[in-house]
Amino acid sequence: MQIAGLEHEMLDLALRMPEDLEEAYSKYAAVSFPEKSGYQNPSKIVVMGLGGSAIGGLILSDYAYDRLSAPIIVTREFLAPNFLDDHTLVVAVSYSGNTEETLRSLKSALKLTDSIVTITSDGFLEKTAKKYSLPTYVLPSGRPPRTALPQMMIALLWILEKSGLYKFPIEEAKEAISLLKELRKHYVANPEPLIELASKISESLPLVYSYWPYRYVGYRFKTQLNENAKIHAFWTPLPEANHNEIMGWEGKLQANYHPVIIRDEQEEDYLKYRIEYLKNLLRSRGISYSEIFTKGRARLAKMFSTIFTLDLVSVILALKLGVDPLPVSTISGLKSYLSTRIDPKEYSEI
Amino acid sequence: MQIAGLEHEMLDLALRMPEDLEEAYSKYAAVSFPEKSGYQNPSKIVVMGLGGSAIGGLILSDYAYDRLSAPIIVTREFLAPNFLDDHTLVVAVSYSGNTEETLRSLKSALKLTDSIVTITSDGFLEKTAKKYSLPTYVLPSGRPPRTALPQMMIALLWILEKSGLYKFPIEEAKEAISLLKELRKHYVANPEPLIELASKISESLPLVYSYWPYRYVGYRFKTQLNENAKIHAFWTPLPEANHNEIMGWEGKLQANYHPVIIRDEQEEDYLKYRIEYLKNLLRSRGISYSEIFTKGRARLAKMFSTIFTLDLVSVILALKLGVDPLPVSTISGLKSYLSTRIDPKEYSEI
Repeated sequence: MQIAGLEHEMLDLALRMPEDLEEAYSKYAAVSFPEKSGYQNPSKIVVMGLGGSAIGGLILSDYAYDRLSAPIIVTREFLAPNFLDDHTLVVAVSYSGNTEETLRSLKSALKLTDSIVTITSDGFLEKTAKKYSLPTYVLPSGRPPRTALPQMMIALLWILEKSGLYKFPIEEAKEAISLLKELRKHYVANPEPLIELASKISESLPLVYSYWPYRYVGYRFKTQLNENAKIHAFWTPLPEANHNEIMGWEGKLQANYHPVIIRDEQEEDYLKYRIEYLKNLLRSRGISYSEIFTKGRARLAKMFSTIFTLDLVSVILALKLGVDPLPVSTISGLKSYLSTRIDPKEYSEI
Repeated sequence: MQIAGLEHEMLDLALRMPEDLEEAYSKYAAVSFPEKSGYQNPSKIVVMGLGGSAIGGLILSDYAYDRLSAPIIVTREFLAPNFLDDHTLVVAVSYSGNTEETLRSLKSALKLTDSIVTITSDGFLEKTAKKYSLPTYVLPSGRPPRTALPQMMIALLWILEKSGLYKFPIEEAKEAISLLKELRKHYVANPEPLIELASKISESLPLVYSYWPYRYVGYRFKTQLNENAKIHAFWTPLPEANHNEIMGWEGKLQANYHPVIIRDEQEEDYLKYRIEYLKNLLRSRGISYSEIFTKGRARLAKMFSTIFTLDLVSVILALKLGVDPLPVSTISGLKSYLSTRIDPKEYSEI
């Protein structure tokens, strides 16, 4: 499929989000959990992962904030938190299965609990899951980790159901899938808004602002701009940004900023007024900004429609800049740099 | 007291951090907690606050990550999380006592639990605390909220002790206080490193990188640059930044960035090598950067010595830029804008 006459494997991967969601739903239904505390009705869920493998947990934490009886805590560290216990469900996520941080973190987690689930496509994490007979959600292999977000989110939603915490929101998922298919049709015929946003960003430093429950949808856009388009981009959640970051607009501006604000037609007045003030402030400084409104009815569709749209913008931007969105050479370079300095035995033998 | 011939009330406030810590320690020892679940041995602590009133909770969450049996979760929202229950201790923090987000959040929290402690100097929060007989840590009034971090941290550490979760780290606190006094003497005689960092930042866009347990010490620096010096500054935690943000250095740079990396002489090799790679990458792109090493022996002294140093840098930068570090007009402007649009009755009558 083409958008705006552009062709690229990364565009194809971004466009198949609805099918990814569908396939993951049926594939992951069968994974079952042991009948023991930690797996059943846990008091907290800790998702351990980094980057593209953490984003599902972050978005789930937004999704669950006002719905669940247990907090979802995402740790992106080398060490597991000390508060793990037999009533905590640990979800270790590493697309490659070889992320050093996640493996070290898992190693320290195993000293505190054995209620662990894994999400991975391969590597040491897969081996560890087999060795300890941990329930595993197998990701499709051979893709950039960041494109496996639909699978990770569906796996995490199934984990909530299997643990007894929250029924799989099947109606929300169906709405999300059909909305994405509609949107795709729409964008193929009318790619202009996507191209316009990409072009505004192309000569600027994008600052993403987003509020709950879309905080990490905003963070996803920042990381997609980093990884697909190879540009800097920064993200700050609202209303927190009003209590510090907003002061930056008083001083001498060091870049041609382009704020992108993620909004919802149904947002509360107290959010609307705060954004009104921010927009007035930006206009008074001659700063142009963009607003992206969520689409859909229920939360999952609103989240995924926005992720879908902004993922596409990041890929289109890469292609317009003449940048290959697929490889992440600087990250790969870091991995090979580390491989000459750290012995994998230190963290892989769990 | 003067540093580098500069005089300003904000400099005085920043320089009295050791006395603030000392006074708070004795003042807050007496606050007692009810003998009931939630207050005693809670399964989680939720700190609700925004900006300068949230930073203590964030830094405490770093401090506690590998030490406590309960997670410390900071929420900076209008709504309390749904997972509050009778075993959760809620700490509502608002310096002014009139922060709309915190008051709304507290209102929704009261439907789920009554195990609540407050930290405030005044306002509706103080009134609510009296009405519900909630234990209260009274902050010194008439100061910018961000300068009350020492008091907030000491109050939070006392809260851990009173709840039975963690003994007040008196030896660590003593070390921190005497180290800050030494450092102050040293900076008065040798302000050059502070001035040098301020001057490097003055013509650039600072990007703060920090890793656990100094993640939020880094975030504090970003917000102090925003509020004191009125400039933009961005913060990303490591190692997460290696999995996305680092890709930004591949593309066309949109600003004269100056990365500031917070480091520890005792850091693990796996962190050291990652920073080595980042520094090589920056050098290859001709980017100058700064490193700030923590000082002291135990964690609390390392945290506070770095906060003390970087707070001073932010104030010195403001004064060198000819900016008054004290007022935060854009934030005050937002408050008066909101006051014409939102009826305080909506959130203040708890």
